Amino acid sequence: MPRSYLDPPIPIVALATAPGVSALAVLRASGAGCVELLSGCFSRGERLVSAPGHSLVPGNLIDPVTTERIDEVLVAVFRAPSSPTGEDQIEVTCHGSPVIVRRILDVLQGAGFARALPGEFTFRAFANGKQDLVGAEAVDELVSAPGEAARAEAMGRLGGGLSKRLGKARTTMLELLAEAEVRLDYAEEDGSPSGLFPGDVLLEFRDELAALAASWMVGKLHAEGVRVVIAGSANAGKSSLFNLLVREERAIVSPEPGTTRDWIESGFEIAGIPVRLVDTAGLREGTGDVEAAGMERSRALAVAADVVICLADATKGLGPGDEELLGRRLDALKAWNKVDLVEALPRPPGWIALSAIEGTGLPELLAALEGELHRLETGLRDRAGKDETEEFVVTSPRQKRLLDRAVDSLDGALALVGARGADESVALDAAALELRDAADAIGELTGEIATPEVLEAIFSGFCLGK
Amino acid sequence: MPRSYLDPPIPIVALATAPGVSALAVLRASGAGCVELLSGCFSRGERLVSAPGHSLVPGNLIDPVTTERIDEVLVAVFRAPSSPTGEDQIEVTCHGSPVIVRRILDVLQGAGFARALPGEFTFRAFANGKQDLVGAEAVDELVSAPGEAARAEAMGRLGGGLSKRLGKARTTMLELLAEAEVRLDYAEEDGSPSGLFPGDVLLEFRDELAALAASWMVGKLHAEGVRVVIAGSANAGKSSLFNLLVREERAIVSPEPGTTRDWIESGFEIAGIPVRLVDTAGLREGTGDVEAAGMERSRALAVAADVVICLADATKGLGPGDEELLGRRLDALKAWNKVDLVEALPRPPGWIALSAIEGTGLPELLAALEGELHRLETGLRDRAGKDETEEFVVTSPRQKRLLDRAVDSLDGALALVGARGADESVALDAAALELRDAADAIGELTGEIATPEVLEAIFSGFCLGK
Repeated sequence: MPRSYLDPPIPIVALATAPGVSALAVLRASGAGCVELLSGCFSRGERLVSAPGHSLVPGNLIDPVTTERIDEVLVAVFRAPSSPTGEDQIEVTCHGSPVIVRRILDVLQGAGFARALPGEFTFRAFANGKQDLVGAEAVDELVSAPGEAARAEAMGRLGGGLSKRLGKARTTMLELLAEAEVRLDYAEEDGSPSGLFPGDVLLEFRDELAALAASWMVGKLHAEGVRVVIAGSANAGKSSLFNLLVREERAIVSPEPGTTRDWIESGFEIAGIPVRLVDTAGLREGTGDVEAAGMERSRALAVAADVVICLADATKGLGPGDEELLGRRLDALKAWNKVDLVEALPRPPGWIALSAIEGTGLPELLAALEGELHRLETGLRDRAGKDETEEFVVTSPRQKRLLDRAVDSLDGALALVGARGADESVALDAAALELRDAADAIGELTGEIATPEVLEAIFSGFCLGK
Repeated sequence: MPRSYLDPPIPIVALATAPGVSALAVLRASGAGCVELLSGCFSRGERLVSAPGHSLVPGNLIDPVTTERIDEVLVAVFRAPSSPTGEDQIEVTCHGSPVIVRRILDVLQGAGFARALPGEFTFRAFANGKQDLVGAEAVDELVSAPGEAARAEAMGRLGGGLSKRLGKARTTMLELLAEAEVRLDYAEEDGSPSGLFPGDVLLEFRDELAALAASWMVGKLHAEGVRVVIAGSANAGKSSLFNLLVREERAIVSPEPGTTRDWIESGFEIAGIPVRLVDTAGLREGTGDVEAAGMERSRALAVAADVVICLADATKGLGPGDEELLGRRLDALKAWNKVDLVEALPRPPGWIALSAIEGTGLPELLAALEGELHRLETGLRDRAGKDETEEFVVTSPRQKRLLDRAVDSLDGALALVGARGADESVALDAAALELRDAADAIGELTGEIATPEVLEAIFSGFCLGK
């Protein structure tokens, strides 16, 4: 039977760094007795067993069956409870060879380590009170953040500040409920209780949670980025501009040779926001039926894009397609391309002078792009009722769903609390139920009352070694 | 002007783990003052500066300009000279996010770290006497070893045993030369010197170096692997067998989900040796001209392969192509496929009963393949005059070239030492020159007399972060 997160915490091991040939790789192990277990596969076993927490022990990783040296390694030892998982923990740094990593994993499995489940290290940190659920989710969000803005937000959640704030709100709700329980019982004998669920307090919670729920749109912008489409007539230079932007800006995104393909495919980053650039030049241009279909698709892509760059051929002026597009997307960025050619026509006002071949005008275009992204972000923040100085942004759909549920319940409670008259105590009973549901939603969000099923669903989505 | 390996050793930094989204990533830094430099970008700077060698300090990586927290990290501190490079050294373990890695590299560069050149950490280890040149090259060979056998050999060279043995041979040669210098001067007055270059000693060196040079073929087998071709008539089931082998054996090679593409493409591994399996079924089969050309190419591939598996269709028996192939490759492995079908003809002796669809006979075929690989390896070892208990195998073309040069020079010296008579002292002078060249070749191999150009050429071929 496969292991589960809730089984007893036996020693586990997994590769924690990205696979591939590199200078170093790190294997991570955790669980009571893991240092002793590793010592049987290590040239300086006694030294390892007596190593204090937060110390490094260099030595050789040995196959205990053949006594063969597998690699020179460096072992970092952490002692419970002062370790990331709260258990005894080890990090083995070996040479970054897939063959070595495989061999060490085999040897450690033979020695009694189990392969870690995805997210199992973070799960154990959560189970041992080292991290609340929002923080645990932030670990995974942090690692896969596609840009600076998403990284900074995940770091904010990782710190636990959001959980603390939500936890405080939940505590107040539970206090109100406890007080209500006593006074509603008493009220049956003694007439109507008053001021049980103060409307202003509930409204304050409601607005705070609603703002957090709405911040999800901002988080989504940062996590998924924006789609930018270059549109324009045939031969306006769309591909040249595409290549120029990708070439110039890719350097910003991935200064390391060999950065993963996924990353390069996702485009580049401006002001912390990932940009997915779409080149519509690949779609067929011309006059036939197939070509017309291609043009149609181009136009649809441009109209649906987050940002459109309308690229005009300065030697020909605006084409009918350009006019139509500008009519439908009043917010399009306008670039007057090929200004390096002598045949270039005078640039109309509001257009950026550009030579996609020579690179002239690129800084201006990038500044305009950044302005557009800022405008999009501000729009979303305004809708969320948050200004830029606000600390927390939610990106997990799970958290968004629970915040929405809490807001709905608080809305229900507020409507009931407003009722007065003969049904007052009935209404207050119902309001208590709504408030209880809001508190439960927040508790599930922070993990204070999460069920095993919820936990399993969350952590199994993590990557291996986390 | 770009930095060079021989510039003053300022603090350098590079990503040391494979790029990509993962639980952890490690950045490596080295150079006098690097701990102090990092402390300006760290939440617990004082703690870091006072940290003893081989200790771990958890904290936050900070952008000193904006004071923004970039990530929660763990810093390993090593103090000169007890560090891998021999300098003060740092390893920063951060969350495995490309965005975080980029940001930290930017911040550290801003703080004064230079980006490390490829292999610069290993170069510094070499320059500080922490590693001889053979060991330094072994670091790189270790990381890119495609299988167990290549890994084990690189580990052997990493330990420095080979360098020690070569160094000892060189020392003896230099002693002989020093003695000869004195006695050849003296001989001019006092007649012929005798026993200057003892033939048995030179011959012993010569044979040892020649065996090492010949071990290169074994190293090449382990590093490059063997090509195995599945040949046979159309519809014999070649693709089924190919898929069966790759599917069953891939699990052995890459037990980690997500192991790099390169690795999977290189096939699988049997008994520590990488196997590149070639499926000739993709070449067109039939009767037309194009088809005939395809068959021709298939046959050429089979004849040239290291190992051939001749696959016969048991329901049809041997085709004319099979007979021809078996005539040309007497060492072919023979598999009688489709034995699960009722129409299967009786299996001739020497053929393995196989069902590529059901997997029957796969263990027998794998055992036969392993036997073939062992036979190939033994043949190469015999040619090298080495038995399997021999410790060292050379894989670097550079080392092979220098070993060949030393052997040539020793052969020259031996031929001259044999000469007797009037020209004896002239011959001994010439023999001393040959011996000097052999000693130089060995010195260049171990790095004792390597020039800056040689060093630059070697280390610039390393991967970044090494």
